[in-house]
Amino acid sequence: MAGPEKRPALTDQVSEATTARLSVYLRCLDQLAVAGVRTIASKALASRFGLSAAQIRKDLAHFGELGVRGVGYDVEALQRHLREILGLDRRTRVAIVGAGNLGLALADYGGFRDGFEVVALFDNDPRKIGARTRSGLVVSHVAELARSVERERIDIAILAVPAAAAQRAVDQLVGCGVRAILNFAPGALRVPPTVRLKSVDFTASLETLSFFLAAERDGKGASR
Amino acid sequence: MAGPEKRPALTDQVSEATTARLSVYLRCLDQLAVAGVRTIASKALASRFGLSAAQIRKDLAHFGELGVRGVGYDVEALQRHLREILGLDRRTRVAIVGAGNLGLALADYGGFRDGFEVVALFDNDPRKIGARTRSGLVVSHVAELARSVERERIDIAILAVPAAAAQRAVDQLVGCGVRAILNFAPGALRVPPTVRLKSVDFTASLETLSFFLAAERDGKGASR
Repeated sequence: MAGPEKRPALTDQVSEATTARLSVYLRCLDQLAVAGVRTIASKALASRFGLSAAQIRKDLAHFGELGVRGVGYDVEALQRHLREILGLDRRTRVAIVGAGNLGLALADYGGFRDGFEVVALFDNDPRKIGARTRSGLVVSHVAELARSVERERIDIAILAVPAAAAQRAVDQLVGCGVRAILNFAPGALRVPPTVRLKSVDFTASLETLSFFLAAERDGKGASR
Repeated sequence: MAGPEKRPALTDQVSEATTARLSVYLRCLDQLAVAGVRTIASKALASRFGLSAAQIRKDLAHFGELGVRGVGYDVEALQRHLREILGLDRRTRVAIVGAGNLGLALADYGGFRDGFEVVALFDNDPRKIGARTRSGLVVSHVAELARSVERERIDIAILAVPAAAAQRAVDQLVGCGVRAILNFAPGALRVPPTVRLKSVDFTASLETLSFFLAAERDGKGASR
């Protein structure tokens, strides 16, 4: 009798680059659904949104057979499936640590798609505590963090504090049981292996643009 | 006599994912240089920073032979070379459009590494014009955009305006001759093929985290 196969954890097989592409596919499917498209082949999906059909098939193959040969993907079923894979079938509760310009911008960011809800905002500056953001969130003191993480069932913390304060804030969040952190502070941060940390590096984004400008200056990108 | 080979443009061969990895390699080399390391093999570089040695060799092979077999890479030479490839050997001049919380946060962002300099900040709200950021930048009216792009030799514009105002701002920037735009507004934007647009999508970053939380809830990530 064969026991369950010993497979590597799904989270190890699926890279961050893949999950980022799943997000893109979901955005495309959302647009197709609004446009009334019911089924779509990987090739049509690829050409319509400037993606790679082979990559789409490879990415989705991680999660079992999601398409029907010769017919393509059922738009609504694939939407639903991707939302489940990405954990968007339940609301993900987000806390922001740091109520400076960036924290306030994120608290009022209109671009978080459904599935995410910013439910708490923290700072350690007494002058900011009790202030209300445009969207109605009230700034709490970081001393409330542990209680709030439990009471508000925080899933993800967004770190929007200065670099010098970042590691201390990460340690506090980890101590409160937060398992996933989106970090905006520059510099390297340490987390235990059970905690996921993703850092947003604005300079790296600028570098992809300056790379293209440099290649164009050298004439290497001239054909584009 | 063989003429110059007809090759695809470098910018077409090298994906955005590759340039993002080049940024990471450069950060690692910066750390090694500070630590006094003079040469490093791709294998050591990989294991030290949790990267893939094969990927490093493949990525760097795009740009010619940069390592010496059996010895590895000369840290300083590779640093210098990557800085050139990424266009960091000259200062890249950045303008920010939108002086709301996000624009102000980016104007004062301490994490832009050298190579990038924020030299102008624009808004269309008369109440904001003339205000000074913590770092000393003065908010100008968007009506000044064309003049400023030319006079300040702006290379990259950062778009930090509400979604509803984004396409109009993009069109203005393109009209002023800006060739590279880093966009923070949610939603799709159109640019002509000669202009590079890179969008930062905060929700996609959150989704890579919620993916891992979902996989853990399902027990699929439990081995991690």
